[in-house]
Amino acid sequence: MKNPSLIAFSIDRKSDIPVFAQIYEAIRRMIVSGALEGGQSLPPSRSFATDLGVSRSTIMAAYEQLVAEGYAEGRHGSGLYVRPIGEVELPSDQVPVKRPAPVPSAKSSPTARLGWPLLYPGVPDMRLFPYRPFARCVARVARASPQSLVMSFDPFGDWSLREAIAAHVAEWRGIQTSAGQVMITAGSTDALEICIRTLMQRGDTIALEDPGYLPLRNFVESQGLAPCWLKVGPHGAEVPPHETAPKLAVLTPSHQFPMGGAMTPDRRRAFLQWADEAGGWIVEDDYDSEFRYAGRPIPALAGFDQADFDRASRVIYVGSFSKIFSNSLRIGFLIAPEALTDCFAKTLSRFGTKASIAPQRALATFMQDGDFYRHLRRVRRIYAERRNAMFDLLRRELGDRVAFDDHQAGMQLVLKLPDGCDDTQIASDARDVGLSPLALSSHFAGDQVEKGLVIGFCAHSPEESAMGIKKLRRVMEGHC
Amino acid sequence: MKNPSLIAFSIDRKSDIPVFAQIYEAIRRMIVSGALEGGQSLPPSRSFATDLGVSRSTIMAAYEQLVAEGYAEGRHGSGLYVRPIGEVELPSDQVPVKRPAPVPSAKSSPTARLGWPLLYPGVPDMRLFPYRPFARCVARVARASPQSLVMSFDPFGDWSLREAIAAHVAEWRGIQTSAGQVMITAGSTDALEICIRTLMQRGDTIALEDPGYLPLRNFVESQGLAPCWLKVGPHGAEVPPHETAPKLAVLTPSHQFPMGGAMTPDRRRAFLQWADEAGGWIVEDDYDSEFRYAGRPIPALAGFDQADFDRASRVIYVGSFSKIFSNSLRIGFLIAPEALTDCFAKTLSRFGTKASIAPQRALATFMQDGDFYRHLRRVRRIYAERRNAMFDLLRRELGDRVAFDDHQAGMQLVLKLPDGCDDTQIASDARDVGLSPLALSSHFAGDQVEKGLVIGFCAHSPEESAMGIKKLRRVMEGHC
Repeated sequence: MKNPSLIAFSIDRKSDIPVFAQIYEAIRRMIVSGALEGGQSLPPSRSFATDLGVSRSTIMAAYEQLVAEGYAEGRHGSGLYVRPIGEVELPSDQVPVKRPAPVPSAKSSPTARLGWPLLYPGVPDMRLFPYRPFARCVARVARASPQSLVMSFDPFGDWSLREAIAAHVAEWRGIQTSAGQVMITAGSTDALEICIRTLMQRGDTIALEDPGYLPLRNFVESQGLAPCWLKVGPHGAEVPPHETAPKLAVLTPSHQFPMGGAMTPDRRRAFLQWADEAGGWIVEDDYDSEFRYAGRPIPALAGFDQADFDRASRVIYVGSFSKIFSNSLRIGFLIAPEALTDCFAKTLSRFGTKASIAPQRALATFMQDGDFYRHLRRVRRIYAERRNAMFDLLRRELGDRVAFDDHQAGMQLVLKLPDGCDDTQIASDARDVGLSPLALSSHFAGDQVEKGLVIGFCAHSPEESAMGIKKLRRVMEGHC
Repeated sequence: MKNPSLIAFSIDRKSDIPVFAQIYEAIRRMIVSGALEGGQSLPPSRSFATDLGVSRSTIMAAYEQLVAEGYAEGRHGSGLYVRPIGEVELPSDQVPVKRPAPVPSAKSSPTARLGWPLLYPGVPDMRLFPYRPFARCVARVARASPQSLVMSFDPFGDWSLREAIAAHVAEWRGIQTSAGQVMITAGSTDALEICIRTLMQRGDTIALEDPGYLPLRNFVESQGLAPCWLKVGPHGAEVPPHETAPKLAVLTPSHQFPMGGAMTPDRRRAFLQWADEAGGWIVEDDYDSEFRYAGRPIPALAGFDQADFDRASRVIYVGSFSKIFSNSLRIGFLIAPEALTDCFAKTLSRFGTKASIAPQRALATFMQDGDFYRHLRRVRRIYAERRNAMFDLLRRELGDRVAFDDHQAGMQLVLKLPDGCDDTQIASDARDVGLSPLALSSHFAGDQVEKGLVIGFCAHSPEESAMGIKKLRRVMEGHC
């Protein structure tokens, strides 16, 4: 059976969107709009590929995606069929509505991504997000306190959110602080930029982990700072050698990015001692600390500092909501030692603030109501299962090709590649089939580069990840 | 009559909040909470000053503020009385509610400002903002499209807002563009940073207006760029001399910041010619162009570019919602020439995005519904009246001391001071009595500094501004 509309759509080969994804999206739209009905068959991949002038594996990739998301199903020996629409759990934006919605349509840009690509590291599965409970918090704030959606005279952000964050880090990260020391930022990158703008001047030396977070490295370079690279070993980043004399070190002590692994207590103490003796500052980027799947939580360095050192804190703590809300909400925070709050305020007035007030009161409500924590506990359980499934899968599918450590934490892991494999080339070839692992080597700044792939295990179901890993295996077969 | 609670509160002399404002706020809270009732008298300023250990003029300043905001009124010959609460139009956050609101309280940080200080330039009167209509848009989005509050896969922002902005600039600014070229940013400063990060490298020369916008200058300096200062004359900024060879010029052609005045058509054409011949880029910062009080609107340079030059546009247009929503919403935008959209996307992925998705769909709804434009037309009418009142006031109160030009536009104006006046010192002394004019000289980078005060006329009623100008007159008496 040939459905004429199925071959009528045009493929844009110059688009950023892979061809398989364009085909997937065209079919998905027909299913959602009802143009393709439950029970209808999809064309056989071979003839469909000929009709569209693409390779059969491209059609297969599109079909696999549709099956993985529940839009289609295979029937033994007889090809692929559209599943009845009621059985598909759609994101709420896409549920066909009875009467025209009173808000602009959910059309998205022609170049917008369709969703996270498979294996893309460090992102949450936003299909699990409790949109309605959060939207109810937003609606309640809109009713009770409409001003707070638009306006604040406090450059550090909404006071109730700052209180909620102070309570959060006390319970989850062992940090005793007051709301007055909490500053709301436009995500953790904004927080890191504010720290650097406050504490560093052109030409100053800054200690950064190598490998580390790329937007941070890009910002440091754009500011004309001199980076001093800290090698990352099994105990965490190395303490900067005396002669390098950095003014500031940015660390990920709870879960090194991207290698994984926590800094040992001895190394933590050594860093605090360094800061104290050298008069240096430590910025602790605690980007995904909520996700620890075994053992006791590792307290934040900022809390460690308070407990063990009877003197002014030299640690600025940076946290983020991007691992819960995705990075579209753009809400992070920093906790400044009391002695620095005025300096941070001055930076905001010199460079301007970036954090929107719009979601802040609703987020505070969401946290205080407990919906935030219910969601956090739920996804932590789900991600733990996905992590286990991913390790099983890796052992089965790639155990002969890659090595990987289990750090029992976070949202991504590193597949180490044998000598002679080009991780950049593999990552690039993987993109062509809709996967997005990152090349480990691109996270290194110095000469001692390790080759590997950084992949995520949270954003997709075990079935979807299995599809991703199988595709990755095929990509790697051509390389190492 | 002495009210014991009125002398019981403590003044924090180390606080950033001026003493008069602390007294004002303490009394205002008592009125709002009902601790002070309508008809009760406030203590005579002289004895109250003695009780609190402050100067009488400090008490007078607090009382004037209460009168200006309608919390108290003078009765002929018999001091000051609290006005019955029903007569006071309170911001909705502060209306006593019958039952406990289901969202966190509207407490604000101890160091938050109470409102815009008098004469502070370039800010809207947020007491006029239609909070409830905007909140209704937010609530409708929360109901109809809860996902859009949290999540977007498009780094350029919500598509419906980008469409609304494309329609807006077509009608208001004469720019023909498509939503695909519109990028949502965290305010106009973020937009300027993105332009510079995309188009400039360390050591490159950038042309900036002198005087100009301070956060932009601070950013340029922090990036290690070489500024080439463009003198601002009656025709607008001067075209960069050939030998300076800047790659980029940032201009405010519709209304120069901070001097006021529009660039002449000849000068605009000269800039476009420069960009074309030198292969340079122009960033047009159109920060307050909605506010023009007489004559025809001045079309944007970006529109001029399209109309007169039959070639690829070299103008990037930057707009902002901060003049309508205050700068707490942090929503601005840039419009990139089609040839540059990919470069801008790359910048976002290198440095991360800063704009929150949270308010975007609601803002699109607000614009499409027409509430945005109703508000815009209303405040434009009110600001025009305030502008007229301000000029009358200035002629009456300061006509012998300062000079000022009427540019029929914007939200602030410049009071030029005679030789020998120290504008920085005047601005600093003014802050002590609760005023916030800015010193004109601090906006200059080069040697040729003019002295003056930049003051706003939109954020306060004519009565409030009159109070501000009278205070300013007293401050100036000690100086020139």
